[in-house]
Amino acid sequence: MHICQVVGKVVSTLKNEKLVGLSLVLVRTVQLSSKKDPIFGNDIQVAVDLIGCGTNDFVIVTSGHNANLVCANKAPIDLSIVGIIDSGLDGLQL
Amino acid sequence: MHICQVVGKVVSTLKNEKLVGLSLVLVRTVQLSSKKDPIFGNDIQVAVDLIGCGTNDFVIVTSGHNANLVCANKAPIDLSIVGIIDSGLDGLQL
Amino acid sequence: MHICQVVGKVVSTLKNEKLVGLSLVLVRTVQLSSKKDPIFGNDIQVAVDLIGCGTNDFVIVTSGHNANLVCANKAPIDLSIVGIIDSGLDGLQL
Amino acid sequence: MHICQVVGKVVSTLKNEKLVGLSLVLVRTVQLSSKKDPIFGNDIQVAVDLIGCGTNDFVIVTSGHNANLVCANKAPIDLSIVGIIDSGLDGLQL
Amino acid sequence: MHICQVVGKVVSTLKNEKLVGLSLVLVRTVQLSSKKDPIFGNDIQVAVDLIGCGTNDFVIVTSGHNANLVCANKAPIDLSIVGIIDSGLDGLQL
Repeated sequence: MHICQVVGKVVSTLKNEKLVGLSLVLVRTVQLSSKKDPIFGNDIQVAVDLIGCGTNDFVIVTSGHNANLVCANKAPIDLSIVGIIDSGLDGLQL
Repeated sequence: MHICQVVGKVVSTLKNEKLVGLSLVLVRTVQLSSKKDPIFGNDIQVAVDLIGCGTNDFVIVTSGHNANLVCANKAPIDLSIVGIIDSGLDGLQL
Repeated sequence: MHICQVVGKVVSTLKNEKLVGLSLVLVRTVQLSSKKDPIFGNDIQVAVDLIGCGTNDFVIVTSGHNANLVCANKAPIDLSIVGIIDSGLDGLQL
Repeated sequence: MHICQVVGKVVSTLKNEKLVGLSLVLVRTVQLSSKKDPIFGNDIQVAVDLIGCGTNDFVIVTSGHNANLVCANKAPIDLSIVGIIDSGLDGLQL
Repeated sequence: MHICQVVGKVVSTLKNEKLVGLSLVLVRTVQLSSKKDPIFGNDIQVAVDLIGCGTNDFVIVTSGHNANLVCANKAPIDLSIVGIIDSGLDGLQL
């Protein structure tokens, strides 16, 4: 799973019916390294958040087919937040 | 899910039978950033649109296996539009 | 789905039994743009063709899990041609 | 499957219920080559480890849908460790 | 499917039980082109080989979810060899 940072929310009124009620947040990839400064990806994606993340939170995201295993229905999504990171990134440059 | 912009339609007469009746639109990836100007990907892809998007709309697209969860049949597709973006991109450079 | 151009065929005698009888063609990715000249990807891949494409045809290809929905059996493939493009690319630099 | 090196652990208290009890480790991609020095990817990802890897171990990781076949439940994960490498990388620059 | 070249074998004693008995080979991506010299990817991956490939063979590999359709059990793998290439690459720079 990739590590991302939450940077905002997105609003979509006209959408697939299975996405109704799902919180859609904007996330950007965080590239960590033990050698270099972190690189924030400039490709911002949309993820489903059923955990309740806040802006600036560092989160674990699952992509692809298994992303919709966080939902009860088979929603047509490919990215979802599965955890908020507490620690473990300290030894690395965040 | 990636954020894309609709840039046109594509016509295919000779195609897989499960794609008959599905609207096929051309989309290009939009890379947003809080630091840099947006970058429009020069890789234009084909997405299924069951929502009814117009050219220039900014949309949320789902890729991979779950893309065909927007269809009733199990169509051999890997990209579909699941929502039109109303707002949320304002704080970012669109 | 990506847009590709058919550039040849490939022959494989020793292969998985579920691939027997499936036409295997070589395709290269076509990157279109409204701003730049097209870029032909130099990464040539192998796709299953059950439509009957000819060399130089521009085609729509589906990748990943759903690629084998064009077959009756569950073949271990990850790329298949789902349509030949008639038009829609005119406004873009092909 | 990609070859990765384990570089640490990550702690997440607030997470999807299906991830409870799964060990989450940080891994970075190792690019081997018979011609060049190895390149350590600066994109550190989170993988599920049910094997019991130690830091610095070189491991085989499976990504995507099949990653959760290591679990009994259908966890929303997309990366898991499936083996620790004993040998075979000797002829290549590790 | 991508075209790869087999470059060796890898040994893993401590691994997921569903991988026991599966031959694990190292492969590197081959990028063909009708215009440029071939480029050998410096990212070497691990693939399951149930066909019996030899070192230096050019093979067709399937990635992702469908990779484990070559196995009887649902193994947690994401890359497998599905065919050895006889010919078809002649017109291209191999």
